[in-house]
Amino acid sequence: MSNASLPATMTAILITSPGGPEVLAPGTRPVPAPGPGEVLVKVEAAGVNRPDVMQRKGLYPPPPGASDIPGLEIAGTVVALGAGAERFKVGDRICALVTGGGYAEYCTTSEATALPLPDGLSAAEAAALPETVFTVWSNIFERGGLKAGETLLVHGGASGIGTTAIQLAKAFGARVVVTAGSDEKCEACVKLGADLAINYRTQDFVAEVKSFTAGKGANVILDMIGGRYIQKNYEAAAQDGRIVQIAFQEGAKAEVDFMRLMLKRLTHTGSTLRSRPVAEKAALAAAIVEKVWPLVTAGKVRPVMDATFPLAAASAAHARMDASAHVGKIVLTVG
Amino acid sequence: MSNASLPATMTAILITSPGGPEVLAPGTRPVPAPGPGEVLVKVEAAGVNRPDVMQRKGLYPPPPGASDIPGLEIAGTVVALGAGAERFKVGDRICALVTGGGYAEYCTTSEATALPLPDGLSAAEAAALPETVFTVWSNIFERGGLKAGETLLVHGGASGIGTTAIQLAKAFGARVVVTAGSDEKCEACVKLGADLAINYRTQDFVAEVKSFTAGKGANVILDMIGGRYIQKNYEAAAQDGRIVQIAFQEGAKAEVDFMRLMLKRLTHTGSTLRSRPVAEKAALAAAIVEKVWPLVTAGKVRPVMDATFPLAAASAAHARMDASAHVGKIVLTVG
Repeated sequence: MSNASLPATMTAILITSPGGPEVLAPGTRPVPAPGPGEVLVKVEAAGVNRPDVMQRKGLYPPPPGASDIPGLEIAGTVVALGAGAERFKVGDRICALVTGGGYAEYCTTSEATALPLPDGLSAAEAAALPETVFTVWSNIFERGGLKAGETLLVHGGASGIGTTAIQLAKAFGARVVVTAGSDEKCEACVKLGADLAINYRTQDFVAEVKSFTAGKGANVILDMIGGRYIQKNYEAAAQDGRIVQIAFQEGAKAEVDFMRLMLKRLTHTGSTLRSRPVAEKAALAAAIVEKVWPLVTAGKVRPVMDATFPLAAASAAHARMDASAHVGKIVLTVG
Repeated sequence: MSNASLPATMTAILITSPGGPEVLAPGTRPVPAPGPGEVLVKVEAAGVNRPDVMQRKGLYPPPPGASDIPGLEIAGTVVALGAGAERFKVGDRICALVTGGGYAEYCTTSEATALPLPDGLSAAEAAALPETVFTVWSNIFERGGLKAGETLLVHGGASGIGTTAIQLAKAFGARVVVTAGSDEKCEACVKLGADLAINYRTQDFVAEVKSFTAGKGANVILDMIGGRYIQKNYEAAAQDGRIVQIAFQEGAKAEVDFMRLMLKRLTHTGSTLRSRPVAEKAALAAAIVEKVWPLVTAGKVRPVMDATFPLAAASAAHARMDASAHVGKIVLTVG
């Protein structure tokens, strides 16, 4: 790559030491060079996600080979191609799932995990899609095998993942139950299409799910809470139910009675997106372009936007996520 | 059904009260009448299984509609047909998975869960097959998806299920690791084809499995132990490994760290055979006739016989199972 119009350095958000939102600060880094099969993107917007918070706290080190700059999803314009990259050309607007480095003016991405920026979406909206859409598609539809007519239970219904899950599951003909931490969040979920929203602070989600499903339980459960929820998920699941674990906000250790897992023939599984090989992410991206992107351009699935912050205010964006008062996605805008 | 040659009553083993092997005693019961889609079998042999022990102890009540006489598998001769039964005719020799009632001179079975008695096998050998073959096929191959070239770990390698699992998994091209409780049992497993047998009393099975698989772990684990084994199974499993739970001899409750389940994208699932609908058992039976029966008649898969006892000595058979010194199947012979 050599492009006279590209600067040598850029502004990026650095984690100055493990800690609270205040450890995030703008700094200067070299503009990265795209490797084989990669493209360089001039970033217009970058999504903020829970794993970024974990990384900030020092609890989620970047995988080998990934940038230490936080940020797992971006939208922007292709400005240079690495060797062999051929899916996009310079000037194309894309959004992409990246292994790190999103909180910056420039970021490289494998072309295989990049998607064309959907018509009619702003850069901020497009940057809000990859992490949640890849996560929801791979865990609820591929790993969990959700089918039309089945009932999905999503914890954290008002989160980026939750709001995407509600829209996608409804679009594919499932019934959707969510949990959320306030009546306002529950209302927002129902407005998005959830058939039932349970305020977990005042209601017992196991009893509510059972009652909603005439005693049968949920066929697929997407859980990022862990801890005490693991046993409760086994109770709330239907015969042959699938429980997919994508995080452990309450911790990964729990005392569990596995008798229900066996008697109900449950499947408890899980995955993380970031560590998966590029080839698997590429296959996911292809499925998403085919199955999900038409719903996005048709307006049936839209990112729910909570707030945008300029790149330099990344610490304020993280403070908002830490407070858990948001509904939908928090996004950084660049330039 | 009306058949002048059939007696009105029969000898059966009854559970006189919950307790040790001594609570099993011969008694007299009416000969059962085959219902729609069922056949009546003059029992020649009945397999003894762990669930029978649990039922004897009062810990595993028969499902609704099942006989309270213990016994989950039989071999013998069809002596009467229920309404609509057409797969077999009077005089056919069959073996069958039954929902109860096997420890008796006569027993009914759904024709859908009965299989022709394989050529060259005695009735005692044929009675030793259904429970282990149905269990191994449904849990290791269907639910666990074991493929050629993968590594299977089976706990209790010297049990009826273990010895069947070793032979079937080897016949389908997998590598097989087992655990067992003595060097003698380990030797018996290796003789049957196991690639590695681990004496769990003197060796750490997690370390041994890792070492055997060059650090990768087992792709499928069949576990009937539970308790502390659950966490160890998560450690011994390979990336994308499947762990199938078929019992909890050490208890179903455990304190577990689920982080490995998520990071390795494990699938933890389980099932019990007895409670599954007849239609599912019928589909299993059809798959077994197609995939497993040819291996049995070819002599590649044979029941490993530990001991046979006459029906009236059922309590001695149970005492032998309680002592856990057996290798292979314990079978009752009738008449």
